[in-house]
Amino acid sequence: MTGFAARLTDAIRARNSVLCAGIDPHLDLLPPLFQQKNMTEAVRDWAFELIPLLAGQVPVIKPQAAMFERLGPSGMTMLASLSQAAMAEGLMVIMDAKRGDIGSTAAAYAEAWLGHEAGFASDALTINPYLGRDSLEPFAEKAQKSKAGLFTLLRTSNPGSADIQMLQSIEKKPVFHHVADMIRPFMESMVDASGFSSFGVVIGATWPDEQAALRKMLPECLFLIPGFGAQGASASDALAGLVKGPEGWEGGVVNSSRGLTMPAEANEARNLTDWRAAIRSATSQTIQALR
Amino acid sequence: MTGFAARLTDAIRARNSVLCAGIDPHLDLLPPLFQQKNMTEAVRDWAFELIPLLAGQVPVIKPQAAMFERLGPSGMTMLASLSQAAMAEGLMVIMDAKRGDIGSTAAAYAEAWLGHEAGFASDALTINPYLGRDSLEPFAEKAQKSKAGLFTLLRTSNPGSADIQMLQSIEKKPVFHHVADMIRPFMESMVDASGFSSFGVVIGATWPDEQAALRKMLPECLFLIPGFGAQGASASDALAGLVKGPEGWEGGVVNSSRGLTMPAEANEARNLTDWRAAIRSATSQTIQALR
Repeated sequence: MTGFAARLTDAIRARNSVLCAGIDPHLDLLPPLFQQKNMTEAVRDWAFELIPLLAGQVPVIKPQAAMFERLGPSGMTMLASLSQAAMAEGLMVIMDAKRGDIGSTAAAYAEAWLGHEAGFASDALTINPYLGRDSLEPFAEKAQKSKAGLFTLLRTSNPGSADIQMLQSIEKKPVFHHVADMIRPFMESMVDASGFSSFGVVIGATWPDEQAALRKMLPECLFLIPGFGAQGASASDALAGLVKGPEGWEGGVVNSSRGLTMPAEANEARNLTDWRAAIRSATSQTIQALR
Repeated sequence: MTGFAARLTDAIRARNSVLCAGIDPHLDLLPPLFQQKNMTEAVRDWAFELIPLLAGQVPVIKPQAAMFERLGPSGMTMLASLSQAAMAEGLMVIMDAKRGDIGSTAAAYAEAWLGHEAGFASDALTINPYLGRDSLEPFAEKAQKSKAGLFTLLRTSNPGSADIQMLQSIEKKPVFHHVADMIRPFMESMVDASGFSSFGVVIGATWPDEQAALRKMLPECLFLIPGFGAQGASASDALAGLVKGPEGWEGGVVNSSRGLTMPAEANEARNLTDWRAAIRSATSQTIQALR
């Protein structure tokens, strides 16, 4: 198996799409067609129906771990099988679990969530940098062993991300630039044949100027870009940190969750055929908008 | 049910002990007595045996979510039942899962992990502040509803915690003091009859001077103090941020994991009777050291 960055770049080029489909099963927004008493079953039916519609269209999906954890242990069992099913259909999987801890505990999270053989199998995992450089090492080590990727939270899409991430340091730069400096050695050591690194960052689509500046600071970095659509960022905002490759945009993926998997037309569908058509249509429109 | 801070303070006073027993099932350190092919079963046997030995001795346990996640979905199912079993024996449970996200995703984590009715039932949860104030709101809201507590990572026990947490801001104070300022309104709004707040912080036993300084900054704050024992901090280091109450130390708990649940004598035990005696002895010695 090639490295994560090479696999993702190949998948992006093959589909000429940087769209990442966020699988966020908001229980209160689940289409009426799928509602049933057992919420885990309802989410399972909805999520497993999405997989074949997304396969071949988008390079990667991003399940939101929180929404599965909310269902308790049965939700976690379902998340593990959903990830396997997606991989079997040729989709890559970024687990959005935002884990972070130190030493042997970080190593345990890495074992749990990184690589195709993990209990919660993935191609990549989101992680939190607040605990410092030594807290990232066990993740980087396991990612390299299992040819998986990492996306460290850098500048998130929410307004409150300014509270800590934008604090000015005595060197007159924001805290998230210090985080960028901290991760640079990991990032540089994980560049593969694609020219990109399997150690990436999360930066919100809501901050296009900062995306462009970060691209200059970390040219080989893969960006995971949330906040497009539902959180108000336009397609050109979302693309501000990506680069033009031979087939189109590359260097990262732009996530869309609700806009793709819960569009109004799909929620109003009275049968599976109409629901599928609505999801297909929302997916191709979003892919087009991001080209 | 009274608030988390009141329940924890009562439990501390009743036992005259601030010891929190960390349940960290390191797979490679599990005593030979419990080793078996199915690792989830091995961990289950070990952890469920610990519960009655700790009940009545320590006020609270702290399962390390990562070590259960590492076992995959079966580990998560076991974690949920372990927490229920501990509560049934009168132990309080702090889930050490270090969750953090924004908006509805943070709300989903809060639903999953906070309160006795949650899928992963707890009395309190550890959370990560890097995403800012708005990312903490859904946790605070759910904690208040379910009479649960929160411990925000502030200054962690690892050396690398200096990388971000100790960065000096342009106002010449470390980032973790800005985090302390950010959480103050939550902390103040969640003080109960005990005089302490159900919105607490994590500060490493390895930083006694900073603990003492933080106690002045946040007098009503409960401290969750890791790093005692295995990570090198002494009992007096670990107690530096606590306060003397009518029965002894209070205002937080000091965590010990391996030193308590995997002492050398217990690991050498050839039968359950000897193992239990070794755990009991390690527990009472540690309680004594922290008085």
